[in-house]
Amino acid sequence: MSNPQDRLHQPTLTTHGIQPENQETPISFLSTNAMSSELFFKRNHFSYPTLTYSNYWLPINGLVSTPKVFSLQEIVKLPSKTIKVALECAGNKRSLFEPKTFGDQWGKGAISQGFWTGVPLTTLLEATGMNANAKEILFEGYDKGKRTDLNNEYSYSRSLPLEKALDPDTIIAYEYNSQPIPFKHGYPLRLIVPNWYGMASVKWIKQISLISSEFKGPYQSVDYVYYPNKENDSGAFPVTTVNVNSTIQQPVDRDIMNTGTHVIKGIAWTGTGKISKVEVSTDQGETWFDAFHEPPNGSYGWSSWTFEWSVYEPGEYTLMSKATDSFGRTQPLEPFWNRKGYGYHAIDQVHVKIE
Amino acid sequence: MSNPQDRLHQPTLTTHGIQPENQETPISFLSTNAMSSELFFKRNHFSYPTLTYSNYWLPINGLVSTPKVFSLQEIVKLPSKTIKVALECAGNKRSLFEPKTFGDQWGKGAISQGFWTGVPLTTLLEATGMNANAKEILFEGYDKGKRTDLNNEYSYSRSLPLEKALDPDTIIAYEYNSQPIPFKHGYPLRLIVPNWYGMASVKWIKQISLISSEFKGPYQSVDYVYYPNKENDSGAFPVTTVNVNSTIQQPVDRDIMNTGTHVIKGIAWTGTGKISKVEVSTDQGETWFDAFHEPPNGSYGWSSWTFEWSVYEPGEYTLMSKATDSFGRTQPLEPFWNRKGYGYHAIDQVHVKIE
Repeated sequence: MSNPQDRLHQPTLTTHGIQPENQETPISFLSTNAMSSELFFKRNHFSYPTLTYSNYWLPINGLVSTPKVFSLQEIVKLPSKTIKVALECAGNKRSLFEPKTFGDQWGKGAISQGFWTGVPLTTLLEATGMNANAKEILFEGYDKGKRTDLNNEYSYSRSLPLEKALDPDTIIAYEYNSQPIPFKHGYPLRLIVPNWYGMASVKWIKQISLISSEFKGPYQSVDYVYYPNKENDSGAFPVTTVNVNSTIQQPVDRDIMNTGTHVIKGIAWTGTGKISKVEVSTDQGETWFDAFHEPPNGSYGWSSWTFEWSVYEPGEYTLMSKATDSFGRTQPLEPFWNRKGYGYHAIDQVHVKIE
Repeated sequence: MSNPQDRLHQPTLTTHGIQPENQETPISFLSTNAMSSELFFKRNHFSYPTLTYSNYWLPINGLVSTPKVFSLQEIVKLPSKTIKVALECAGNKRSLFEPKTFGDQWGKGAISQGFWTGVPLTTLLEATGMNANAKEILFEGYDKGKRTDLNNEYSYSRSLPLEKALDPDTIIAYEYNSQPIPFKHGYPLRLIVPNWYGMASVKWIKQISLISSEFKGPYQSVDYVYYPNKENDSGAFPVTTVNVNSTIQQPVDRDIMNTGTHVIKGIAWTGTGKISKVEVSTDQGETWFDAFHEPPNGSYGWSSWTFEWSVYEPGEYTLMSKATDSFGRTQPLEPFWNRKGYGYHAIDQVHVKIE
């Protein structure tokens, strides 16, 4: 009764599916500087895999000079790096598309961030060597199962082109926020690919293979492809780099508020360069003001931003946020509709009523 | 790693607000026969109140023969009853209204059920007696605070007309599922008003007063009123009895499924009589089939229902559910739009894609 715990407000993940488990971050209610693994969104294609720590090895094979099988002990002894990365599901904000698309109806919370520690993939490849005809690096996860549209069982597997795989910040991670990666987020080893949508960051890595051709697995040639047309596949192209984007965290949509001064707060992020500007409109896009945003700090995390809004006239208002990055990319007013609902990054909107 | 707990799928509440705390039940992912208090939706108007168990007394005053102050010990010694009640927030499904209304955007999970144990209010009133001019019974909660539209501080208070207050199943509850009511759900004493929307079931009861006039507090004369018009208050009438309603729990909206046989499952409930029929359509309302539903069992809980659907033609389908109760009330195709977004009970819809 007098236990103060009783009165704590604890947001938890919002569930979209349990078999497999898909849950999003309560993004509006985060204190953005402390993003615990409990609040990290979960996006699974299959049931959780079965694997045993005692038996865990990481093979690197295919077009290498010397195929190797690394033990976890070997990997954690190698020079590591820790990088702050925001991972965004390609389906983040899918529920905002009109017409609606099929698949989990993610709100604005299929994005999370924290500190990942691991070994650059390049470090491991220096040990195995690479053949000259290697074109892609293929990552296979322990998670596997059937798809509704195909008959066979598939492992979750995706490849990276060589230049992305060899980026010094593409790491084989074993810690999240200085702790072993939680099982549901890829323990013991997870690929982390900064700047790409989350589907690239393969969990529970089973093996890494160097290959000479373009990998065509279903999570690369069927899913995680932008299909601009509802009825056919013309114009299709792969989902890779994260779009420049922003989200208003507070207020939340359809809030009822007082006249007076309110802090509008949110986050902005991009897969190219750094966030250079965040603008806010409180009149449905007629006029825009610069919001205060965190300076670029060399990380792959999001920038938090705030804007002080004084409002004295009761009525209904549309608040908008628009981010721009150092490559000049900016959020469009209209989303780029695509059949599977990926990469939503239109200007963010929240409607409020002032009383 | 090999801890099987790691692989449990645990849906949790979906957060709409934390100050005050408003969270909904993950209704699609419930095993409906075991509804723990952890999954019970939370709907608060204010911060949680401060009250101390050691000091707790329940005064009943106003138009009574003998005002009394009951101790908890006295109350739990009185003859009790246990009733299964589904409590539904008046704002359940608010997010489905078009045009959208302001306030928390509840999905389909602002409804929960379980077993409430307590003393019929009539038992306590037999001890105090009632004056002939008593017209309503007023319940004040310990929760209080300011509203955006008014200047003073208000306690959360609501009245019941005498005939509803004296219903033998209107109880002063002290247990939920055979345990003390969790603090966030109204400990130590909560009013339970079966068949009315949840706003009537006042939590953290501070006092009960018998009054001779119609109570006009803001949670009765401003909020929890149906306003059929956007621009003015004409035609307004109070929110009381729960509408006949149903929800498809599985599949969830925008699911992608295989051809074959699927079980469509859901719940149906009403504030008048019993659920007498649940119908399902898989062709957007062209044809309807009876679903199998639990027989009426004398409780105020929901009826679970299932329908086996065999589908062999790939494509997009709209699944619908429609409940009818023993008073002949049935769900309309179009919702009754009202400015504050209460009592949504249109035929439920889920869109799926068959591959």
